[in-house]
Amino acid sequence: MASPEFLSLEQSLEENLPPADLSNVRRILFGRETRKLDLPPSALVAASQRDFELLAFAFEASKEQLRPARPVRVGLVQNRIRLPPDAPVSEQVGALHGRIVEILEVAAQCGVNIVCFQEAWTMPFAFCTREKLPWTEFAESAEDGPTTRLCQKLAKTHNMVVVSPILERDEAHGDVLWNTAVVISNSGAVLGKTRKNHIPRVGDFNEATYYMESTLGHPVFQTSFGRIAVNICYGRHHPLNWLMYSLNGAEIIFNPSATIGELSEALWPIEARNAAIANHCFTCAINRVGVEHFPREFTSGDGKPAHCDFGYFYGSSYVSAPDGRRTPGLSRTRDGLLVAQLDLNLCRQMGDLWNFKMTGRYAMYAEELAKASQPDYRPHVIKE
Amino acid sequence: MASPEFLSLEQSLEENLPPADLSNVRRILFGRETRKLDLPPSALVAASQRDFELLAFAFEASKEQLRPARPVRVGLVQNRIRLPPDAPVSEQVGALHGRIVEILEVAAQCGVNIVCFQEAWTMPFAFCTREKLPWTEFAESAEDGPTTRLCQKLAKTHNMVVVSPILERDEAHGDVLWNTAVVISNSGAVLGKTRKNHIPRVGDFNEATYYMESTLGHPVFQTSFGRIAVNICYGRHHPLNWLMYSLNGAEIIFNPSATIGELSEALWPIEARNAAIANHCFTCAINRVGVEHFPREFTSGDGKPAHCDFGYFYGSSYVSAPDGRRTPGLSRTRDGLLVAQLDLNLCRQMGDLWNFKMTGRYAMYAEELAKASQPDYRPHVIKE
Repeated sequence: MASPEFLSLEQSLEENLPPADLSNVRRILFGRETRKLDLPPSALVAASQRDFELLAFAFEASKEQLRPARPVRVGLVQNRIRLPPDAPVSEQVGALHGRIVEILEVAAQCGVNIVCFQEAWTMPFAFCTREKLPWTEFAESAEDGPTTRLCQKLAKTHNMVVVSPILERDEAHGDVLWNTAVVISNSGAVLGKTRKNHIPRVGDFNEATYYMESTLGHPVFQTSFGRIAVNICYGRHHPLNWLMYSLNGAEIIFNPSATIGELSEALWPIEARNAAIANHCFTCAINRVGVEHFPREFTSGDGKPAHCDFGYFYGSSYVSAPDGRRTPGLSRTRDGLLVAQLDLNLCRQMGDLWNFKMTGRYAMYAEELAKASQPDYRPHVIKE
Repeated sequence: MASPEFLSLEQSLEENLPPADLSNVRRILFGRETRKLDLPPSALVAASQRDFELLAFAFEASKEQLRPARPVRVGLVQNRIRLPPDAPVSEQVGALHGRIVEILEVAAQCGVNIVCFQEAWTMPFAFCTREKLPWTEFAESAEDGPTTRLCQKLAKTHNMVVVSPILERDEAHGDVLWNTAVVISNSGAVLGKTRKNHIPRVGDFNEATYYMESTLGHPVFQTSFGRIAVNICYGRHHPLNWLMYSLNGAEIIFNPSATIGELSEALWPIEARNAAIANHCFTCAINRVGVEHFPREFTSGDGKPAHCDFGYFYGSSYVSAPDGRRTPGLSRTRDGLLVAQLDLNLCRQMGDLWNFKMTGRYAMYAEELAKASQPDYRPHVIKE
């Protein structure tokens, strides 16, 4: 795959293509150009001082007569872990909390209404190791763990909805673990939680060793700024997962992820964007950055010698719109905050234009899927 | 959108990016590089003389112990109409038949096993006009119309499976029309037919004026060279359509299309490729080329003055693999034949790697979709 040090696709195109070609290439790759959003100079200065990338774009919709525009600003945060995975657990968590606090101050200056962090953001993505301690110590209560309490405070301070994907310890149900996103209202109240619906069985993503598939279905959260849902990581490979969030009314679906170059980088620009198109909604794909080195070696089921790192998390977080447009990605190498102003009216406008829900024939597919799920299903195959 | 005369994204990148960047950009955009396939010089000469582009690539799979490699060569044909839409119907059809005959001779020299033409390949894409005559005269019997008979002859002569998407006249059911793909075995026998499952209600695609959604479900055709299915045009926007063909065992899904730049060009590289990834199969996206001028003007429901053409069909046909790789696209401006050698073993290998079918939770989605299809469905929304 692309080497870790390759900064970004977008930058390479910008630096090398002649202007006429650049415009054509961009339109084929990214759709009609998104407008760059002006940010307060103080935010740009702070981002630079705090060493993270700050990009901002706006997606407009057509003007309607009866509905005013519904602009909402989302913030996508991608970051490296701050301390090495063999540092004490509480120090690792504290360092990540501190990093998010300083990034959110800038997000607030940029007028962000809803922010989402990367998957399992308070910890290294240690599931590759298949070890339990110390990694399971990063798990917290979704309702009143220290991370949720911090996010509540931040949400209230900044009048911002916070989507906080964590490793959850579920004490009320036998102390089990879940991969969970906590949704915190801009009032500071915990609005609810949602969990990962599809657990990977691929490569070093040994998450099935730690937690099971969600039993919470496909909840959508009505926030002050619009209806949102969270499709966690591997669920982005499952088009039905996106669809059900959309059928429940999601206008923005966040996809907090942790994924590595060798495995998925060619898939990354495709899946969340396809979901935005197919479901007439905005999607926000977020990936962590950098290499995480674990104290003890592990093998990867690929015949290669034992090693201590999972691979290169390539960042590249981006936002896709229901009309097929997308923002450029954040860099492959740096912490970053991507701000996108979305006019949510675009969702229904695109639905009325393309009509994928109207033409979706869901009752037919419900029947076909029910049949295909039966043990005695015989695929519909025509032979000579 | 990108202007009609812009030849291709791939060519612009190749001509302008420095080598190190080109390699990184290609890998991010297209996945691990596909091997170029050597073709007989006589085929290259013939393609040049007959004025169409000829490209060829190979997707390899890992070697297995128990299954030999299963290489199959598919051919994707994209072309302009040959005569203007106001020429006599029989002459228009005859000219397109002649064009396909000469392209298939070259496909045979390239060892193509399965060929697919563009949607409604025997006619201009006249549904924008909403007129009935003369366009409905292009409709034919799927079983024994002149186009099917021609394809049977070609299939037998070249030992090639032919997928022939036509406007079908269904005399056995009240003379109605369908948008149909006829699948013809390399023996020359009609293996069967499949029809368009989702009919567009967008832009100038006034196809709902002419024909209804298929009632034939999601048949897969067992050919001598592998199991194939046909997802016609607008069905590519519906992830469930791809999924059901895949659940019925399709290893290659063809997507014969007719789509125009202003509306869909930013979506084109995303949807069929996402389907290949999500369903562990190969997908083949085919679009026609050029502008078709109709004799009488029509309006487009967009406030613009009446006009006589539909827009620019931008070609760009391509093949995607289950590991996320894809071929470059054929040009945006010329007739073309894209040959791709696919090792079908890659489908099961990618299924075993990623496990999207195993983790798909289809029984859950069958239930959720059944509920969501009920008149009294209440979306799952959580409020403060």
